Amino acid sequence: MAESDRTPVTVIGLGSMGRALAGAFIDAGHPTTVWNRTPGRAAALVERGAVRAATVAAAVTASPLVVTCLTTFEDTRSALEPAATALPGRAVVTLNSGAPAGARAMAAWVTGHGARFLAGAVKNVPSAVGEADTLLYYGGDRTVFDEYETALRTLGGDTVHLGDEPDLAALYEMAVGATLLPALVGFFQGAAVLQSRGLEVSSMVRYAEKWLDMIKSLLPVYAKEIDSGDYTDAASSVNLFLAGSAHDADLTEETNVDTAWLTPLHDLVRRAAEAGHGEHSISALTEVLRKPERAA
Amino acid sequence: MAESDRTPVTVIGLGSMGRALAGAFIDAGHPTTVWNRTPGRAAALVERGAVRAATVAAAVTASPLVVTCLTTFEDTRSALEPAATALPGRAVVTLNSGAPAGARAMAAWVTGHGARFLAGAVKNVPSAVGEADTLLYYGGDRTVFDEYETALRTLGGDTVHLGDEPDLAALYEMAVGATLLPALVGFFQGAAVLQSRGLEVSSMVRYAEKWLDMIKSLLPVYAKEIDSGDYTDAASSVNLFLAGSAHDADLTEETNVDTAWLTPLHDLVRRAAEAGHGEHSISALTEVLRKPERAA
Repeated sequence: MAESDRTPVTVIGLGSMGRALAGAFIDAGHPTTVWNRTPGRAAALVERGAVRAATVAAAVTASPLVVTCLTTFEDTRSALEPAATALPGRAVVTLNSGAPAGARAMAAWVTGHGARFLAGAVKNVPSAVGEADTLLYYGGDRTVFDEYETALRTLGGDTVHLGDEPDLAALYEMAVGATLLPALVGFFQGAAVLQSRGLEVSSMVRYAEKWLDMIKSLLPVYAKEIDSGDYTDAASSVNLFLAGSAHDADLTEETNVDTAWLTPLHDLVRRAAEAGHGEHSISALTEVLRKPERAA
Repeated sequence: MAESDRTPVTVIGLGSMGRALAGAFIDAGHPTTVWNRTPGRAAALVERGAVRAATVAAAVTASPLVVTCLTTFEDTRSALEPAATALPGRAVVTLNSGAPAGARAMAAWVTGHGARFLAGAVKNVPSAVGEADTLLYYGGDRTVFDEYETALRTLGGDTVHLGDEPDLAALYEMAVGATLLPALVGFFQGAAVLQSRGLEVSSMVRYAEKWLDMIKSLLPVYAKEIDSGDYTDAASSVNLFLAGSAHDADLTEETNVDTAWLTPLHDLVRRAAEAGHGEHSISALTEVLRKPERAA
């Protein structure tokens, strides 16, 4: 590995994800400085070769590339504030969750202090950091991405620059992440259904995995329908889902599982049918989810 | 292929899935008889070698193995009623959606007419019928499954007998299928989020697919937690999701996308926290979805 590939890196915020990020940099041979509000978190990393900075300002000063992994943008700004005078010339890369507005405010603050800014997200669990298939995407200053791409790729082989706007990763997080809680609650409902018959939930895992693969195979088709606005080639129509929604009462009667959370989902399906999408693809629900434009 | 592997088969109900099933039997060399209330549907299958029965009774008489693919159990029974006297000694295999109670009623009716019964489900789209990886599962008479397993496997290489109860496939359908609508609505919400910024929905498909893979990787972990009732080793806690639920307002403010359908999901998360599961795994939501036992 060329010397230039071993940029000194600072990692600020040593929760389980922050520790995984720092560990990946250490393993790749980057001189790695770490800082956390609670210093104890750094011990194992220091054993592996990291330098623990005494102050956040010292941590920022230590490296041209500063990666933060705190909970929110507000936490990040509050942690970096004592280091504001050390920021000029640095590249700050945030890896936290938060709204696009938070990312934009953070970008304004960081660039206002003379640093360049990139905001990203790790699309995986801490144990997957550093693997070839692990996805991280970033929005913001393209020069930061280009300059430190090799170092950033240390965190996951599937590393992407979405565009120059600093809130793009936050926006994609909102968009991509929207399946998580609903899909999990669906799975937990299925688990409760099996338990109502004294069956092991593990017995359905293989089938549920295969079902998610089937759902996955639908996404490119639906994306194309939504992008084109042409919902007429409907493999699964809104009316088909509307007919299925009648079965919730059966499910509760059969299994005593609470299906009330599904009511607004079925309402969306009915509203799509009422809006003339009955024989259209279920992806026409997107039209119902977009509220009418706000008055200017 | 041994002669015994080419059992004569009758397929009743020639919608897109029924036609795919009949086509797979024909391709595998089974003498195949088909019947549909609207006879025109049989034309292409007859060209490929199927025999079109003039009546449903003739269709049932033609083969020891009778596979039905109608919309509901009620449709199936109503279609088979004129063939009731032809049923003794046959094996009837239903492949339709419906509630477990419907499967039990169907089983009683079929066995009451002297036939054996198996109720199954095709866990895939018609175009996947016949492929090595396509999943079909069945509940009901094990002797039917054992006797005709080779023929049934023609429809999909991943063919499973869940158990002797005739409603098991319907029950697993309820359980496994529960992720579909919620996951799709999550994806459509994500689509609407991107559209609010003028971005192509197709640009997030790759990330959304990877995200579903991540969700898939959680299922065995959550199943084990739910089966054991031990939710204490929480990689993603109820409180973590509770904190996330505060962001819906941000999303609507940012994108003007309707998030009202998420409210009852967040209510479930809050109820789980209130029930003492705050620091437990999100899989503890299963406990909240199970309603208190009904009075005897």
